[in-house]
Amino acid sequence: MILRIDRWGTELPPPSDPDPNAAAAVQELMGGRFGEMSTFMNYTFQSFNFRNKQGARPFYDLVANIAAEEFGHIELVAATINTMLTGASPTSNGDGSIEGAMDGLKDARNTQQFIAGGHAALPQDSNGRPWTGDNVFASGDLVEDLTHNFFLETAARQNKLRVYEMVDHPAARALTGYLLVRGGVHQIAYARAIENLTGAQLMKMFPTPRIATEKIPECLPHIERGDHKRIYRFSPDDYQEIAAVFNGQHPETGDELEVVDGPPEGALPNDLPPQPKAFVPDFHPEEIAEIAARLRTDAGLPKEPTGEVNEPAA
Amino acid sequence: MILRIDRWGTELPPPSDPDPNAAAAVQELMGGRFGEMSTFMNYTFQSFNFRNKQGARPFYDLVANIAAEEFGHIELVAATINTMLTGASPTSNGDGSIEGAMDGLKDARNTQQFIAGGHAALPQDSNGRPWTGDNVFASGDLVEDLTHNFFLETAARQNKLRVYEMVDHPAARALTGYLLVRGGVHQIAYARAIENLTGAQLMKMFPTPRIATEKIPECLPHIERGDHKRIYRFSPDDYQEIAAVFNGQHPETGDELEVVDGPPEGALPNDLPPQPKAFVPDFHPEEIAEIAARLRTDAGLPKEPTGEVNEPAA
Amino acid sequence: MILRIDRWGTELPPPSDPDPNAAAAVQELMGGRFGEMSTFMNYTFQSFNFRNKQGARPFYDLVANIAAEEFGHIELVAATINTMLTGASPTSNGDGSIEGAMDGLKDARNTQQFIAGGHAALPQDSNGRPWTGDNVFASGDLVEDLTHNFFLETAARQNKLRVYEMVDHPAARALTGYLLVRGGVHQIAYARAIENLTGAQLMKMFPTPRIATEKIPECLPHIERGDHKRIYRFSPDDYQEIAAVFNGQHPETGDELEVVDGPPEGALPNDLPPQPKAFVPDFHPEEIAEIAARLRTDAGLPKEPTGEVNEPAA
Amino acid sequence: MILRIDRWGTELPPPSDPDPNAAAAVQELMGGRFGEMSTFMNYTFQSFNFRNKQGARPFYDLVANIAAEEFGHIELVAATINTMLTGASPTSNGDGSIEGAMDGLKDARNTQQFIAGGHAALPQDSNGRPWTGDNVFASGDLVEDLTHNFFLETAARQNKLRVYEMVDHPAARALTGYLLVRGGVHQIAYARAIENLTGAQLMKMFPTPRIATEKIPECLPHIERGDHKRIYRFSPDDYQEIAAVFNGQHPETGDELEVVDGPPEGALPNDLPPQPKAFVPDFHPEEIAEIAARLRTDAGLPKEPTGEVNEPAA
Amino acid sequence: MILRIDRWGTELPPPSDPDPNAAAAVQELMGGRFGEMSTFMNYTFQSFNFRNKQGARPFYDLVANIAAEEFGHIELVAATINTMLTGASPTSNGDGSIEGAMDGLKDARNTQQFIAGGHAALPQDSNGRPWTGDNVFASGDLVEDLTHNFFLETAARQNKLRVYEMVDHPAARALTGYLLVRGGVHQIAYARAIENLTGAQLMKMFPTPRIATEKIPECLPHIERGDHKRIYRFSPDDYQEIAAVFNGQHPETGDELEVVDGPPEGALPNDLPPQPKAFVPDFHPEEIAEIAARLRTDAGLPKEPTGEVNEPAA
Amino acid sequence: MILRIDRWGTELPPPSDPDPNAAAAVQELMGGRFGEMSTFMNYTFQSFNFRNKQGARPFYDLVANIAAEEFGHIELVAATINTMLTGASPTSNGDGSIEGAMDGLKDARNTQQFIAGGHAALPQDSNGRPWTGDNVFASGDLVEDLTHNFFLETAARQNKLRVYEMVDHPAARALTGYLLVRGGVHQIAYARAIENLTGAQLMKMFPTPRIATEKIPECLPHIERGDHKRIYRFSPDDYQEIAAVFNGQHPETGDELEVVDGPPEGALPNDLPPQPKAFVPDFHPEEIAEIAARLRTDAGLPKEPTGEVNEPAA
Repeated sequence: MILRIDRWGTELPPPSDPDPNAAAAVQELMGGRFGEMSTFMNYTFQSFNFRNKQGARPFYDLVANIAAEEFGHIELVAATINTMLTGASPTSNGDGSIEGAMDGLKDARNTQQFIAGGHAALPQDSNGRPWTGDNVFASGDLVEDLTHNFFLETAARQNKLRVYEMVDHPAARALTGYLLVRGGVHQIAYARAIENLTGAQLMKMFPTPRIATEKIPECLPHIERGDHKRIYRFSPDDYQEIAAVFNGQHPETGDELEVVDGPPEGALPNDLPPQPKAFVPDFHPEEIAEIAARLRTDAGLPKEPTGEVNEPAA
Repeated sequence: MILRIDRWGTELPPPSDPDPNAAAAVQELMGGRFGEMSTFMNYTFQSFNFRNKQGARPFYDLVANIAAEEFGHIELVAATINTMLTGASPTSNGDGSIEGAMDGLKDARNTQQFIAGGHAALPQDSNGRPWTGDNVFASGDLVEDLTHNFFLETAARQNKLRVYEMVDHPAARALTGYLLVRGGVHQIAYARAIENLTGAQLMKMFPTPRIATEKIPECLPHIERGDHKRIYRFSPDDYQEIAAVFNGQHPETGDELEVVDGPPEGALPNDLPPQPKAFVPDFHPEEIAEIAARLRTDAGLPKEPTGEVNEPAA
Repeated sequence: MILRIDRWGTELPPPSDPDPNAAAAVQELMGGRFGEMSTFMNYTFQSFNFRNKQGARPFYDLVANIAAEEFGHIELVAATINTMLTGASPTSNGDGSIEGAMDGLKDARNTQQFIAGGHAALPQDSNGRPWTGDNVFASGDLVEDLTHNFFLETAARQNKLRVYEMVDHPAARALTGYLLVRGGVHQIAYARAIENLTGAQLMKMFPTPRIATEKIPECLPHIERGDHKRIYRFSPDDYQEIAAVFNGQHPETGDELEVVDGPPEGALPNDLPPQPKAFVPDFHPEEIAEIAARLRTDAGLPKEPTGEVNEPAA
Repeated sequence: MILRIDRWGTELPPPSDPDPNAAAAVQELMGGRFGEMSTFMNYTFQSFNFRNKQGARPFYDLVANIAAEEFGHIELVAATINTMLTGASPTSNGDGSIEGAMDGLKDARNTQQFIAGGHAALPQDSNGRPWTGDNVFASGDLVEDLTHNFFLETAARQNKLRVYEMVDHPAARALTGYLLVRGGVHQIAYARAIENLTGAQLMKMFPTPRIATEKIPECLPHIERGDHKRIYRFSPDDYQEIAAVFNGQHPETGDELEVVDGPPEGALPNDLPPQPKAFVPDFHPEEIAEIAARLRTDAGLPKEPTGEVNEPAA
Repeated sequence: MILRIDRWGTELPPPSDPDPNAAAAVQELMGGRFGEMSTFMNYTFQSFNFRNKQGARPFYDLVANIAAEEFGHIELVAATINTMLTGASPTSNGDGSIEGAMDGLKDARNTQQFIAGGHAALPQDSNGRPWTGDNVFASGDLVEDLTHNFFLETAARQNKLRVYEMVDHPAARALTGYLLVRGGVHQIAYARAIENLTGAQLMKMFPTPRIATEKIPECLPHIERGDHKRIYRFSPDDYQEIAAVFNGQHPETGDELEVVDGPPEGALPNDLPPQPKAFVPDFHPEEIAEIAARLRTDAGLPKEPTGEVNEPAA
Repeated sequence: MILRIDRWGTELPPPSDPDPNAAAAVQELMGGRFGEMSTFMNYTFQSFNFRNKQGARPFYDLVANIAAEEFGHIELVAATINTMLTGASPTSNGDGSIEGAMDGLKDARNTQQFIAGGHAALPQDSNGRPWTGDNVFASGDLVEDLTHNFFLETAARQNKLRVYEMVDHPAARALTGYLLVRGGVHQIAYARAIENLTGAQLMKMFPTPRIATEKIPECLPHIERGDHKRIYRFSPDDYQEIAAVFNGQHPETGDELEVVDGPPEGALPNDLPPQPKAFVPDFHPEEIAEIAARLRTDAGLPKEPTGEVNEPAA
């Protein structure tokens, strides 16, 4: 089971100039073969299907815990795409007509972000194709699964670097800077697991792709905070044996790898504005707000919304 | 972000007679269009893409929180399939040969459970096709998303009923009994959300499919415990406004609907035995166990595994 | 636009012994690359996308009219599969329990016929994969489209022959006997169209696959009725120019090819019994019948159902 | 079986400025999950697989008849796309060279409309992916199928609204204006069917998405003609019991719902010009016309084409 | 088994102005339904699955040998796409930063050529969808397979013509000119095979699509060299009986068809420059070169690379 | 370009008892994610897309050459499946009827082997799904591609082991014995390439999966012949620098790795008998043989077939 926390793993900038084609490119990090849905679902299935957990507990704990972090990554990729699409049509209802509200969006690379979705992320890749369960590898053979995971993180790092180069929207840069650091930790973790199981020295392969993480400016704040050498334990009580596998020195910086109890502090999520002409969440969002307020009162809840969000200045 | 808890939402029986074809049928509840991956990912994406959360907070809280519960459901479906496949090949290494270790499994309906997976669940449906992102509906229009969700839970209930009829393996029956009750709660929740937003009276449609839940014997313990009228709040602090939407009477039993803080107690997961001849987690699982023990010691962790599991009597 | 007639192109036998695996094989004729959905949709799209219809009217009329007949073919394939699945679970509600109602069906090759469908046909092929728009070829180049269509009918004939060999259920035999004769007409029609356009002599390729149609006993009644040499004009007033293309001698029998105004007489459809334990159309079908009767009366319609069906003796 | 009528359900404007990207967006209404192929095939399969038709005749008649209307809708979507693509390459052969005939089209979002198709509609969605049988839902459970259909029409209405906003080509506007009105009728029809079966009051959900249909200018002529409250009976003799289900008041206008015998008058189809440099229907379309004329004469048919079309002034 | 020769079937121009959208269009000739992967894999599977080869040797030899040539065609399509993408990002490392290295490419139609691939060809079609085994037709029925192959080559010719019209990049023009001539030979070969087996006169259908090959300027050099009437025997010793089937006159030119022993001379492949900012083959390609040189020396190989390439002037 | 040689990489036994379900399982080694189509196409695309070949020549030579060997592996998998399906219907025409010729095959797991194929291999996996281009990884980053290839061969080895365990048909055992040895060589080759590039010691991971190759009896003859330590150079003149990368000691046996010029001797292919009732290659194969003989004579070729095959005693 999981508990959910309405905070983001890192801060994202507020909406600025919308950039649909850039948002379509960022989809690769969501639903691509090496996107975050893949990392999330690969490790989740591997943890579900783990046999003889007690016999291989440190490895189980590592995989199961990284799976938990990856949920936060699909959340961030979605938030980034949604930020980049905000304002692609008017964010207020205006004259109440819908005529031409999406002018120009017919030329967007991924039109389904606007027709199927509400100016929003889809479980698709950058060519507009859906994520598929065929992206999951869970053989049950521990060394083989770890070999896969190391490869998966390597390919994912490549994808993040290339999306970084392709897209200069501030939200995308904030995202890729964060994901490169955190994905780098997972890449090291799986390499260390293989080393600890087989004796093969994989640390010599880092960084792979062969560019120092610190060369990416948006990675620096996360490195400075130490997030490049740290696994957070995403559980109240479980996954206590990660440190049996995740240990030694960081292959790029030489820092000692460490395990931290609990999730990172993260940031309050931005509450993105409605897109009423696209019926998100309605053509008249204020009517929903009224109903919500009434229902809240009827239920004896506070008059104002209880959830905490960041209301970013656009 | 999420925190993960290594407990199951409900107890499952230990492995008994393996039944690969039945396990292949249960895959529909995993990776089918109306399986648990679909409910999980639909509500997750809807919650990620929710705009103007503050304006529609009770509805956001409802959707985001149900998403969290669904993670526990894919976990249970996987555990059920894995239980049903345990022992389909010898669970000990025996003479050390691999010759004919999977005799007979060539006739199994889903051979990839044994070739790609480790006698284990796959993100596929009952015809062996992968789950796909095309199963996600997240339009951003609140009424429309809720309409979809009500339909989704209705179709999911149908699938659970039919799998129940088709498969009599004890693990599958325990699973479907549980999922029918919990999915029924979600079906009601979305219907109530629509009622509260639009005034349309959907309670008259229950039960749909038109058979009383209490007619299914495996549902009774969960109904007796009250799980048919209860939403658990799967978060330390968030999703406080569910009760603004999830209220009124249960359409089948007349009980008052209620929101409970925190997850259900659930049960310790069964630790399923290795399948060494299928290299799960290795041809020599005991070697991995030795390495794990050594790594644990090196890291200053207890000598014995720290994680708690249920070691079911086969 | 179309008008629909509730009659079948040919008579089918009533349900007898259910045969799920045979029904799964017959799916190839529904949703396979060369199944009836493909012939229907190929000719339909070609007719929709036909440019300069007036300039090429006889060819347009031929393609558009054959498209119309193909609708009746998908109807018949569905009816056949449904017939073969009738009785795979009890056709009456019995004791009102659902326990084990689908015993044994977990071993069926296509479990989705029972989980997703109501003991019924799906838009899938014989390996349980969905029909896809990629099966449609409509290049807009007339000779090329006709070349494709001749190939398509040739491959479809092969599939029908092989399904005939594989499945001996009476409904499947009645179906394939009919489809072989009617598909044979279309194969000739496209070959004649190419001959009339280019001068290439394709009649020498018949029969292809190289076995005389009259060797298949279930084809004989249709040949005797003359249906092997006849195109029906499936329209009140349109498609008058088919005879400009569909003319000359039948390559197997030497009969003169002919065009007949209006659809064939066909047969009343069998009204297949409910599968209440599978909730088709409900767990209590008689309740629906009562509601239907009441609604009919309220609307001033006759007390008894107005539609004509054949109530086959099982 | 069906009869086909070579008339369109509504008039479309002649080709004007070609707009490939807009045509690619309109594909969502053809081959998208909620496009017209989906509505057509969903209701068609539901009608094929309907068991105990006599017991539930009014509901069968409704579904089977709406299926028939949907054929006319895929026809119109195709015609619209074809109109929007006309002239994207020269419509005359010119100097007989093919060099650069499709200059610029490499930047079109859906290049297969020009490479696979003949400047024409494809069975694909707006991201260039094929329609698939997985879009069909036909559970056999009547209430469940109707629940699905109501959801399907709701999502389809959303897609039409968003395509309307995105595309201002006159053909697309004519199409969406028409489809919004006719799809709205089907949405009401399925809601009424559920109400009549279960007592749940769904009329309160209209309009959904929550914008009055009359706000869309291109809908007005159809509303004025009364097409928003009318089901046409698309059959010479069958489907007589629709009125038992489709009755009461229109939820937006309060008009009495009504059933009309026979199809709407519609309009003559436009005969779109050839695209000879793209080989549609040939590089030398006039040669085909000569052959056609000769074949017509040889067959004793009139010298001039018999089919009636509208030759629109470009 | 095969032997591989590092020469191209024809010369291609060096990289010039990169044109990503044109390269995306050319993908249709790689991974489209009628692209070179399809011709290659269709004939390959037909040759693998050929039963009774001795009884039908000339036909087997023809199909197996054409399969071998098609490998060279996928090689050329890849080389063309790679040429067209060269320089889309800087081809030197410059200041060592990766910031903005792929500016502008977010608007490219196929972003995966840059994210998944290294500015390179993918096994996809022009809409960015992967080639699939469903494109293979290998029925085992000889006449039917040949009928398919004739259709396949006809549709492939159409695709090449349309890509020719759409794309004017010199590499694409060189490619399509070559493929039109060589594909034309295969089209004739399969038509002749059918004629020789059945007596049907297919030569009258040529050219199809109905435009003379010699009208395409880039085809002329290949026609002048005689490559339009020639099958090369791609084997040291096998496939001696092609001439039993591939004989008679060329349907367009009247030249005598002929079989030539051995592959064409072809041309040295261009060695395309690295794209270091996209990590192809590395961020520091010179380091790899140093390692390679050292490894060569250690292994007693020449100091300089032994492979022959053409180093094209950009 | 390639030259093709009509010899198999290893000998296969003649047809014995047909085993359709086993043949369906072996499909995983053909069209599965880790089957031979994947290894073939991955290395082929990597070699096509290799930039700066001269700078990284030894690595290019290695990848391009292994690609060439993989063609022979898909050939062998096809031959194995075809062998296992031979005789599943009568291999002679008998009484000339087709009635019931495929009795029983409706229960086969992969019915398309008989309906779409001619008792033959398909480009599908063991669940009957087609191979797809999404299985290809070719990032252009050399270290990353090699990392992938090492993982790919590891997963492929797992699949071969599990198919070995599942299927005891003599042809499948001969196949898997051979592929395990040859795939093992490729696994070592890619590991060595990574070691030589980065210094990471991967040899310690062997064998992976962790079972000695020599434990599989069917591998022994190939090990004894030395095929476990040998790369064949599949080219007349190219790929001279493999030894710069493929060197050092075999991680399981300690033997010195070596490069051998030219392909292995292999074996003559078995000429599998026709399946006339399934129209492979015809209902009357002897007629085709007569035509072939006549065509051979007309072309001045020897009267008897020139190709060499092994005519296995059934």
